[in-house]
Amino acid sequence: MMKHNHVVIMAGGIGSRFWPLSTPEYPKQFIDILGCGRTLIQLTVDRFLGVCPDTNFWVVTNCKYVDIVKQQLPMIPESHILAEPAARNTAPCIAWACWEIKKVDSKANIVVTPSDAVVMNPQEFQRVIANALAFTAYQDNTPQQNHRIVTIGIKPSRPETGYGYVETSDAVDGGIYRVKEFKEKPDLPTAQRYLEKGNYLWNAGIFVWNADTITQCLEDYKPNIAADMDKIVETGDVEHIFPQCEKISIDFAVMEPASKDGKVFTHPADFGWSDLGNWASLHDKLEKDENQNGAVGNVHLVECSNCVVHAENAKKVILQGLDGYVFSEKNGQILVCKRTEEQRIKEWSEK
Amino acid sequence: MMKHNHVVIMAGGIGSRFWPLSTPEYPKQFIDILGCGRTLIQLTVDRFLGVCPDTNFWVVTNCKYVDIVKQQLPMIPESHILAEPAARNTAPCIAWACWEIKKVDSKANIVVTPSDAVVMNPQEFQRVIANALAFTAYQDNTPQQNHRIVTIGIKPSRPETGYGYVETSDAVDGGIYRVKEFKEKPDLPTAQRYLEKGNYLWNAGIFVWNADTITQCLEDYKPNIAADMDKIVETGDVEHIFPQCEKISIDFAVMEPASKDGKVFTHPADFGWSDLGNWASLHDKLEKDENQNGAVGNVHLVECSNCVVHAENAKKVILQGLDGYVFSEKNGQILVCKRTEEQRIKEWSEK
Repeated sequence: MMKHNHVVIMAGGIGSRFWPLSTPEYPKQFIDILGCGRTLIQLTVDRFLGVCPDTNFWVVTNCKYVDIVKQQLPMIPESHILAEPAARNTAPCIAWACWEIKKVDSKANIVVTPSDAVVMNPQEFQRVIANALAFTAYQDNTPQQNHRIVTIGIKPSRPETGYGYVETSDAVDGGIYRVKEFKEKPDLPTAQRYLEKGNYLWNAGIFVWNADTITQCLEDYKPNIAADMDKIVETGDVEHIFPQCEKISIDFAVMEPASKDGKVFTHPADFGWSDLGNWASLHDKLEKDENQNGAVGNVHLVECSNCVVHAENAKKVILQGLDGYVFSEKNGQILVCKRTEEQRIKEWSEK
Repeated sequence: MMKHNHVVIMAGGIGSRFWPLSTPEYPKQFIDILGCGRTLIQLTVDRFLGVCPDTNFWVVTNCKYVDIVKQQLPMIPESHILAEPAARNTAPCIAWACWEIKKVDSKANIVVTPSDAVVMNPQEFQRVIANALAFTAYQDNTPQQNHRIVTIGIKPSRPETGYGYVETSDAVDGGIYRVKEFKEKPDLPTAQRYLEKGNYLWNAGIFVWNADTITQCLEDYKPNIAADMDKIVETGDVEHIFPQCEKISIDFAVMEPASKDGKVFTHPADFGWSDLGNWASLHDKLEKDENQNGAVGNVHLVECSNCVVHAENAKKVILQGLDGYVFSEKNGQILVCKRTEEQRIKEWSEK
């Protein structure tokens, strides 16, 4: 079975909230943001090793990041690096990868994952993914089941307002639940209610399905995108067709209509996931000193507390007398700001 | 007369209080610390242009800075760059330069100056220096006067405890006063008393004398150094002789004993002088924005006040929410600290 498993890594994001660490020229998925010696996309591949054959990894990214992908992931075959000529959100991105996979493996069973999240417990991660893949795999000896999509649902640890949620209904089997409804980012009272109720999970954007399921769903819910993909695979003319695809997320294009049709399931999971969407989440994941500072790089902290510091390639950094600040340096660009103001970083970086 | 004027620039300091802007490899006299497009040593030469012939500049520096001097001051003849094999404080440094000058110009009239101070009014500076040189020049048509040394005395604007002082007695001529006594760095009540009394000036370390005077004074007060210099000029063996010279400042070696012998005079001056000895004095000299920030480099300040920022070669710096901080960057080394803690910078930089 495992030989039909494929992993699609989406690596087109531009990560502007981590300026200057992450820039549109070199976004965060390609950065060793945890200071562990591996970039986020390398860590993403690492945690899938053994889930699929090494030759079944695929990366969809913007054409300007292709060289970085080749450099950081030399084991990925060049034909598996799909270079988007323009960003069209996740539905065309995922569709293209799944169409290409189906062409070479009609029985493909596929995991789609972002490239810029972190998972603190990769062993538990592999257990969950294996369960989900078993649930969506083709059954050779039984009639084809109804189409099943699994989205990995993270058990919430706090009333987070920065993520979308998945509301579960009945358990089916193997720790998997039917999805009742997708919920957009809630306000704080709603998020608190979700946390109390217990049957709401964070939507991590990790999807599992087989090739038939995803192609059929797109034909049903977004026939225009399915038709574009047929043309791309037939003619190879990505350059002209892809930029004209409808710009829409996979959530709106497939997950929501499919959930109304009872095709979407979720595997609740607790493997120390974070989308590393902002400095607060990075601070959360970094090892802290006794003053709650998290620092990456050759950084000397004197009378500092509650700081998050990333100075990947600075020779030496000395910080004194800062409480609750972000410090970030890359390639001669430097940011110092209060952690409470981090949502303004993108605006400043464009000055 | 002017053809006998010579200017000796002392450029051996290591400026460790401005780390990482100034490092032992590239100290502050070679830095464009004011962000005006000229380094401190270049500004020093600039303000003497016209005081002496262009060919009469001399630089004494540590041997490891010779290449920097050549690069920054290409008009200085190579034979006028005196490379100290070891730092022996100012007396051997100044003695060596004056001996070399006397060898090529027996009627030389000499100004000795540090390389790392700033002067905001170069026109007034030239007027004062010209007066002092007139006072120490050889008089061809009259019998040789008694030896006269002039030290430039800065009119104090505040009760500064970081400088030595010169106490004046009677006025002689051309705005020049006899020096009664040199005073070491005072405590604050003493500095306040000096300021009130009005006849105490800051010792700027700028000395004016003719070649006969300084050689004679060293022979009288420090015959060991004079003998070493005779040998250096005779044999050219700087390498062996210089490092064994007595390590002593010109203040102790010459100025104090000469003042007791009535040979030392001072020219009170008010030309916006600062020794730029610390970040506070740099902040003082930089142009400030409406929030009292002084910044050099491509620096964007958001909700910052009372900061002093130097990011000479950073591509872009964004600072937010800092009040009363030093920010300094050079070659991938970065410092952020409270201005009140700047005296600890040297200690941190050695970590």
